[in-house]
Amino acid sequence: MPFDGLMMDTPLTLRMAYDRARRVFGDVEVATKTPAGMARSNYADVCERAARLASALADMGVKPGDRVATFAWNSTRHLELYLAVPNMGAVLHMLNIRLHPEQVAWIANHAEDAVVFVEDCLLPAFEKVAPHLKTAKRFVVMGDGEIPETTLAPVDNYEDLIANSSPDFAWPELDESQACAMCYTSGTTGDPKGVVYSHRSMLLHAMMSGMADTNAISQRDRCLPVVPMFHANAWGIPWAAALLGAAIVFPGQFMTPADIAKLISDEKITFSAAVPTIWIGILQELEKNPDLDLSSIDRIVAGGAAVPLHLIEAYAKRGVNIMQGWGMTETGPLASLSRLKPKFEQMPERDQFRYRAMQGLVVPGIDFRIVGEDGTTGEWDGKSMGEVQVRGPWIARTYHNDPRAPQSWTDDGWLRTGDVAIVDPEGYIQLVDRTKDLVKSGGEWISTVELENAIMAHPKVLEAAVIAIPDEKWSERPLACVVCKPGETVTKEELTAHLEPSFAKWWLPESYEFLDEIPKTSVGKFDKKVLRARFASG
Amino acid sequence: MPFDGLMMDTPLTLRMAYDRARRVFGDVEVATKTPAGMARSNYADVCERAARLASALADMGVKPGDRVATFAWNSTRHLELYLAVPNMGAVLHMLNIRLHPEQVAWIANHAEDAVVFVEDCLLPAFEKVAPHLKTAKRFVVMGDGEIPETTLAPVDNYEDLIANSSPDFAWPELDESQACAMCYTSGTTGDPKGVVYSHRSMLLHAMMSGMADTNAISQRDRCLPVVPMFHANAWGIPWAAALLGAAIVFPGQFMTPADIAKLISDEKITFSAAVPTIWIGILQELEKNPDLDLSSIDRIVAGGAAVPLHLIEAYAKRGVNIMQGWGMTETGPLASLSRLKPKFEQMPERDQFRYRAMQGLVVPGIDFRIVGEDGTTGEWDGKSMGEVQVRGPWIARTYHNDPRAPQSWTDDGWLRTGDVAIVDPEGYIQLVDRTKDLVKSGGEWISTVELENAIMAHPKVLEAAVIAIPDEKWSERPLACVVCKPGETVTKEELTAHLEPSFAKWWLPESYEFLDEIPKTSVGKFDKKVLRARFASG
Repeated sequence: MPFDGLMMDTPLTLRMAYDRARRVFGDVEVATKTPAGMARSNYADVCERAARLASALADMGVKPGDRVATFAWNSTRHLELYLAVPNMGAVLHMLNIRLHPEQVAWIANHAEDAVVFVEDCLLPAFEKVAPHLKTAKRFVVMGDGEIPETTLAPVDNYEDLIANSSPDFAWPELDESQACAMCYTSGTTGDPKGVVYSHRSMLLHAMMSGMADTNAISQRDRCLPVVPMFHANAWGIPWAAALLGAAIVFPGQFMTPADIAKLISDEKITFSAAVPTIWIGILQELEKNPDLDLSSIDRIVAGGAAVPLHLIEAYAKRGVNIMQGWGMTETGPLASLSRLKPKFEQMPERDQFRYRAMQGLVVPGIDFRIVGEDGTTGEWDGKSMGEVQVRGPWIARTYHNDPRAPQSWTDDGWLRTGDVAIVDPEGYIQLVDRTKDLVKSGGEWISTVELENAIMAHPKVLEAAVIAIPDEKWSERPLACVVCKPGETVTKEELTAHLEPSFAKWWLPESYEFLDEIPKTSVGKFDKKVLRARFASG
Repeated sequence: MPFDGLMMDTPLTLRMAYDRARRVFGDVEVATKTPAGMARSNYADVCERAARLASALADMGVKPGDRVATFAWNSTRHLELYLAVPNMGAVLHMLNIRLHPEQVAWIANHAEDAVVFVEDCLLPAFEKVAPHLKTAKRFVVMGDGEIPETTLAPVDNYEDLIANSSPDFAWPELDESQACAMCYTSGTTGDPKGVVYSHRSMLLHAMMSGMADTNAISQRDRCLPVVPMFHANAWGIPWAAALLGAAIVFPGQFMTPADIAKLISDEKITFSAAVPTIWIGILQELEKNPDLDLSSIDRIVAGGAAVPLHLIEAYAKRGVNIMQGWGMTETGPLASLSRLKPKFEQMPERDQFRYRAMQGLVVPGIDFRIVGEDGTTGEWDGKSMGEVQVRGPWIARTYHNDPRAPQSWTDDGWLRTGDVAIVDPEGYIQLVDRTKDLVKSGGEWISTVELENAIMAHPKVLEAAVIAIPDEKWSERPLACVVCKPGETVTKEELTAHLEPSFAKWWLPESYEFLDEIPKTSVGKFDKKVLRARFASG
């Protein structure tokens, strides 16, 4: 060290979020929708219960570094686990409840989960997982009443643990690089991969989430994380809300677009986050029921998949600001956000929407580059295409115990995201595709995402997914899978006429499939793997 | 490590601010008021010049860890130094231009400054410092024209260095705990003490400054740092503005309240920061000139001394929101801020002002406690008084090379701020005094700050400072030094009558001195040391 900065080396840990929620924001609301109505609490209560929970876990023998898993919807109890487990030095592992039971078990075994917290309404699903578990020896059931009849054993009732444990847990001093949580990728290709978050990474992500030009989470907010807490930590909203004193409302198991729309309206939600498919569904609700009042919403983050331009536009017409966020399990997750630069407010509206449909500006703290097929770094010229590679303090440096990890990082330590983008001179990132989804036609790339967005802008179309299919002459050609809006039909010719003005002739799909539904992954993304298996096997 | 978080260990350095300003916010304005009018530039230009400056410094032989000093007003060139010197691994040391020449030299020698950058208009002042310097061997003069006739040698012209050096400086990889900058305390008691900031501390402070509930610096802002860049890094605004993409306007040498008021109006400033005395002066300008338009201002931070309630009220009547910040050179500096909790907006207005006149809520990242004379930690009950002790990632852990350092930290590593406060159950900190300023009367404490605020709320009073004077019977009694508004006079009897409703009888001063001016320290605080020397020596 040439000259040491003489500042405290206070570790950046999630204790900061816990302490601040407990001491400064004790009376701020935390609520969950339950079958019996809204269950209302506050940070003082949540933090006391988190301390009791930590005592209970310590009594069970859970030690620093041990993995404590959850199998649950978004709820206040899940938040208690988010605060208790990391701060006692153990590692919270959120299992994806939407995966196949054997895949859940594979993940729990790979992570070596020691205890699993299961929400009562998910017991039937989890009982199919349990027989395959190798390391999990104890189970805790979360719910309001008695534990239902179950094959799990030994099993505790969450509320009994809370009631019978001490609120005076002695939180240990933690190292900031210690693990706080784990999430597995959704595994659209091969087995899921485990991302292990450090305290430092998640505290920094929470600080960033409070910035006026990112998610701007503040004391003025009532946050509704629709994105599941098992999906990249609900995009960090639980920890950010605690650190920043925002109220938080959890949807529990009530996850249909109609449920969510009603919750926004009833609970005067100001900030929400979910994948685009949810916002597509809520838009339909709004069209069905024009009296639905979403006026409390100040901003929405949509991410996990590209947000169609027409969706941003449709919400804007209703006064709701959708911001497109970009990131992945490996990136904390928030890496970029499509807020407009203030000077853009002078632009014609359609240009503003064009920018808002991009993945936007990288957030403070994250660095990125685009790297072309030839390995050179692309310019920010709005033309050069390349894989997005990122680095920063909330980006994974490897996967947990995974021989495939080296393929996902460059030799100089950047994460290879597998997303292909162009960057304009203002610094706006625009994803054009996944490296594996691009259609390579006659030696040139066709972006399936751009075609999808254009098709979904057709007034009769609800959803569209484009995949590559083998072609003798061109090597690959695009196939468009299209779902019409209820009661509508559309022809290939209409769609071709709709696309022609915007694309080069050789981009236009010759092949269309009209479906009732686009298959989705466990986190709500279009599942192109399934489409490829059905249509592209040649 | 029980279980390692598998995230990148990307260092938190000021390179993040530099890279972001250069690449994402290149066309955002940076401007300085000069004798020839506004000098306008932008981050792209500033960052290119910073790279040239780093090349020039490297060519001069400046190495990682070397101290590079400045003796300058707030300006674009000073910002270039803020970006170049830390990011090349050297340490920027901002000398306080308002100190006595021998004290400046003492500080520069203690810090072992190698090079000093001097603003041309300050050359006459610095030439009195130079003969006492032991380690500084080179000087650079910053200005628009030729170097004036000077006794400094060897001396370079800043603009020649920029013009003749390469813009392709290879910025080194830095360790986040490496020093980026130094500031000395203003030394109201004894010699100044050196605080050495790390990259990590200042990058975190900049991130915090972007939070919606703190300074909320964003791309929408045009920032005017009136607080000098040699005073606790202008409260971190230069680095925060670069990281967050805010435009920045520097007042240069034009620092009278009239100058500042005009600059706010002409440049449509949205965010500004200065000590209360500046805002008191600007209020007088507003009273003289009701057409002065400060409507662009969204928020002001005042700190460095308690902000009188009547000042917050007077600005609020004009639609300007003054937030009281609290901190010191040793705390980064921002440690707490007096924003209202949203629920307080339902309170009667006078209660809102009472909260806004407190030092407010601790900012995210900082932890504090109040410790009474008996060593016990005080409750947040609005009554228990104690010294504020803080810790966190932008709090100093010691002073540079200073045998007095152990007195300022507790055995368990908290900074002893020397400020005495009470904390209410909502977490609002209210300073009642400096430990050394409290009046100990008959075994009880009297807060000089509370008396001052009350006296300054009298319509005829401009400024008031209260000190302890020796008293045979009570050990100490308060003496109030009062400055009337121009053209006004006030009597001891009027002031006693004004105070009586608010204070216990034994708090009321028997002694008053009516002065033309309260002496101020180099950073604009009431200089009670001078008052004590004049009135309290018995």
